[in-house]
Amino acid sequence: MAQTPSVEFFLGYFEKNQQKLLDEFFTFLRFESIGTDSQYTPQVRACCGWLRKYLEEMGLTTETWETNGHPVLFGSWLKAGADKPTVLLYNHYDVQPIDPANLWQSAPFDPAVRNGEIYARGAVDNKGQCFFVLTALRALLERDGRLPVNVKLFIEGEEESGSHGSYKILDGKRKELAADYLFVVDAGLRGPNKPAVTLGCRGITAMTVLLTDANTDLHSGENGGIVYNPNHALVELLAKLHDPNGRVTVPGFYDDVVPVSKQDREELCFDFNAAEYESAFETKPCGGEREFSPLESAWLRPTLEVNGLAGGYAGEGFKTVIPGQAMAKISCRLVPNQTPEQISKLVADYLTANVPAGLKIKITVEGGGGKPVRAATTSKGTRAAAEAYTEVCGAPCAYILCGGSIPISAELAQASGASTVFLGYGLPDDNLHAPNEHFGIDRLKLGTATIGRILEKLGT
Amino acid sequence: MAQTPSVEFFLGYFEKNQQKLLDEFFTFLRFESIGTDSQYTPQVRACCGWLRKYLEEMGLTTETWETNGHPVLFGSWLKAGADKPTVLLYNHYDVQPIDPANLWQSAPFDPAVRNGEIYARGAVDNKGQCFFVLTALRALLERDGRLPVNVKLFIEGEEESGSHGSYKILDGKRKELAADYLFVVDAGLRGPNKPAVTLGCRGITAMTVLLTDANTDLHSGENGGIVYNPNHALVELLAKLHDPNGRVTVPGFYDDVVPVSKQDREELCFDFNAAEYESAFETKPCGGEREFSPLESAWLRPTLEVNGLAGGYAGEGFKTVIPGQAMAKISCRLVPNQTPEQISKLVADYLTANVPAGLKIKITVEGGGGKPVRAATTSKGTRAAAEAYTEVCGAPCAYILCGGSIPISAELAQASGASTVFLGYGLPDDNLHAPNEHFGIDRLKLGTATIGRILEKLGT
Repeated sequence: MAQTPSVEFFLGYFEKNQQKLLDEFFTFLRFESIGTDSQYTPQVRACCGWLRKYLEEMGLTTETWETNGHPVLFGSWLKAGADKPTVLLYNHYDVQPIDPANLWQSAPFDPAVRNGEIYARGAVDNKGQCFFVLTALRALLERDGRLPVNVKLFIEGEEESGSHGSYKILDGKRKELAADYLFVVDAGLRGPNKPAVTLGCRGITAMTVLLTDANTDLHSGENGGIVYNPNHALVELLAKLHDPNGRVTVPGFYDDVVPVSKQDREELCFDFNAAEYESAFETKPCGGEREFSPLESAWLRPTLEVNGLAGGYAGEGFKTVIPGQAMAKISCRLVPNQTPEQISKLVADYLTANVPAGLKIKITVEGGGGKPVRAATTSKGTRAAAEAYTEVCGAPCAYILCGGSIPISAELAQASGASTVFLGYGLPDDNLHAPNEHFGIDRLKLGTATIGRILEKLGT
Repeated sequence: MAQTPSVEFFLGYFEKNQQKLLDEFFTFLRFESIGTDSQYTPQVRACCGWLRKYLEEMGLTTETWETNGHPVLFGSWLKAGADKPTVLLYNHYDVQPIDPANLWQSAPFDPAVRNGEIYARGAVDNKGQCFFVLTALRALLERDGRLPVNVKLFIEGEEESGSHGSYKILDGKRKELAADYLFVVDAGLRGPNKPAVTLGCRGITAMTVLLTDANTDLHSGENGGIVYNPNHALVELLAKLHDPNGRVTVPGFYDDVVPVSKQDREELCFDFNAAEYESAFETKPCGGEREFSPLESAWLRPTLEVNGLAGGYAGEGFKTVIPGQAMAKISCRLVPNQTPEQISKLVADYLTANVPAGLKIKITVEGGGGKPVRAATTSKGTRAAAEAYTEVCGAPCAYILCGGSIPISAELAQASGASTVFLGYGLPDDNLHAPNEHFGIDRLKLGTATIGRILEKLGT
């Protein structure tokens, strides 16, 4: 398919300014904005401050909305006129921790380009996706001196840690956030040059489970055979959470789950390439519930994953210890109509009921969590996004879901009153949340054109 | 019971020189001689060098025996004459790692005295027990200008990491090590003022288990329901290692275990105070095999303990990751007639046979391990130790076993040809291998007198 002149403009704008844009993007990536770890708080705030200045230099009006966590950066350009719709764009400037640090091939906060891919923590999630949104706005402002629609940017600093502070301010910012369309630009393609509009994401609830036995670590020789090792209690407890068919055993866990529908099976693209997955990750897709296909499991079924295990000595060499404590971090991905509160309570109750006698359990549910979200398929915003993808990529656009969670999206959709669509240029092998996270320079360019075209379409 | 003049001499010697002795002991404790972690190697060697100088200043002849790990310090005084027996004393100058570091009330390598107890890593295990052996020799040499028996000291630097290097040199040092009696001074009392001679210790074998799935960490939203989480595989695998009665399920694990005998039940003191244990550690002694009493389990039955668990993110906050790998450190305590080679193979085979499809397992057995040891009850050395304890403590001396392992003791007994006895002044609540390890100044003094009296008794 031939590219429209407008697509050509955006691609040309990116190419002409590429060196300058990459310099600016690398500056953005160098901030160690790990929101979940309080020792990085100064870097998180510095990142937000840099970004605010960047938006202002583009010609946007900005506000820093303080929260009880990290601030939200709010940007706006509202001069398109009352007859034009208002588009709210969501991104986040915080990033995941870097562990395991030793597996990075180049320093996570010193961006390196290899084969056209930019390697850095946050390259794709979500600084890269944020950056092409900004680049699209710049291109339009430089070309036209204006934007085709009214634009609001909500760029938060707590996505990777549950958006707890960002949540709390939404109710008080309904007027500022009011919009016709919300684009959550934190999603991805189905594969290289396989565009897709994401109609929903799973919710999430997360908890830390601490099992305590003795008030101190004990010698495994003196006490092995006497004390109940908390590591044993923990593995026995966690092993009970799934049955041999991969089904979560927590009573009531699936009670409110909407069954996979005929409409979902027709409308959504469940095209999963097992061979590609195996080749990318050197593993078979053999997790999840055996009775569902991989993408049904990851999109339409809730899951429970142990994200972290720690107990005793795990360093170099050996320490023959029976630890006083053992710990696990667990998260559940939720689907309609599950709620974080209900599922975290069911899991916590089940764990508590199954602790071996003599051990103490402490479960800390991470505040907030996130509800699952499903976007409307009939919205003008959905169609504009699908058409823009098709034009820019020269390939048909599919409807998919996302197994991940954007905890704030349900609340942001409600506070803004906007029809909600998820999009983005992530790819499954971008090492999101993992060492060697990366994002393609080509995708920065295509993302710029896609956002530009969506805004143009909604402005006509 | 009235103390003998000789006991009074040793106690008086310690009291008179207490400040100087404690200064020297604290210097010994300040060396961060963590043998298992290679970053501490310079400190391990510095500790050995300091100790060698200390022995020479006492009037002993010394040699540093290099190994492929940390060196053995060998000291000797052989001028008692051919008609006097030769006594070999075993200690070690390496210490355990300090994790979890944040639970220490004072810095682990900056000794602090609280309520007559010296708090430091190595305070009891084994620098304190080593130090009173040396103090007894000094007292005798200063009083008499000679020792009542020929004395050899074997002070190794690898006890906490399996004695791999020390093992290998034993065969070549049979002449130097030849002795009539071997005292392994790395054991303990039954309780305050409850002396005991330890007739044996358990053996050990240890292994690291690494489960690998994907070649990278994966996002638990995108991949939850698709990939088999290695944390799940690990907990499911480890949970299989014990049945609900606390019995190890590994086929063949108990095949060679000598049943608990009538003689053992009569001769050994199985006096276990559950209330004291609960009070000291704030936990119930509810581990081990349900059909055996706590001390039968810890002394006469083999155990399998998970000493370390690590998988995914366990830091502050949350990281919604499915890790590429999950790891466990496992050790087994062995009883006669089990061998480290046989048991590690049984456990590794069982784990390997039970790995879920799609995951890879790598098991690394720590080299060497240690055989279980049982000392003779009829030896003159055993009787001398029991009598010395009774004189010094003014309390009857019991025969007990030790659930811990002194990996080199079986080999050292064989190389020296000596009858082997375990003794020492450790107490169950000394926080051996744990934060806030401690040893009493009073026990340094009593240990000095006990070693002094044993040597006097064997020299008459």
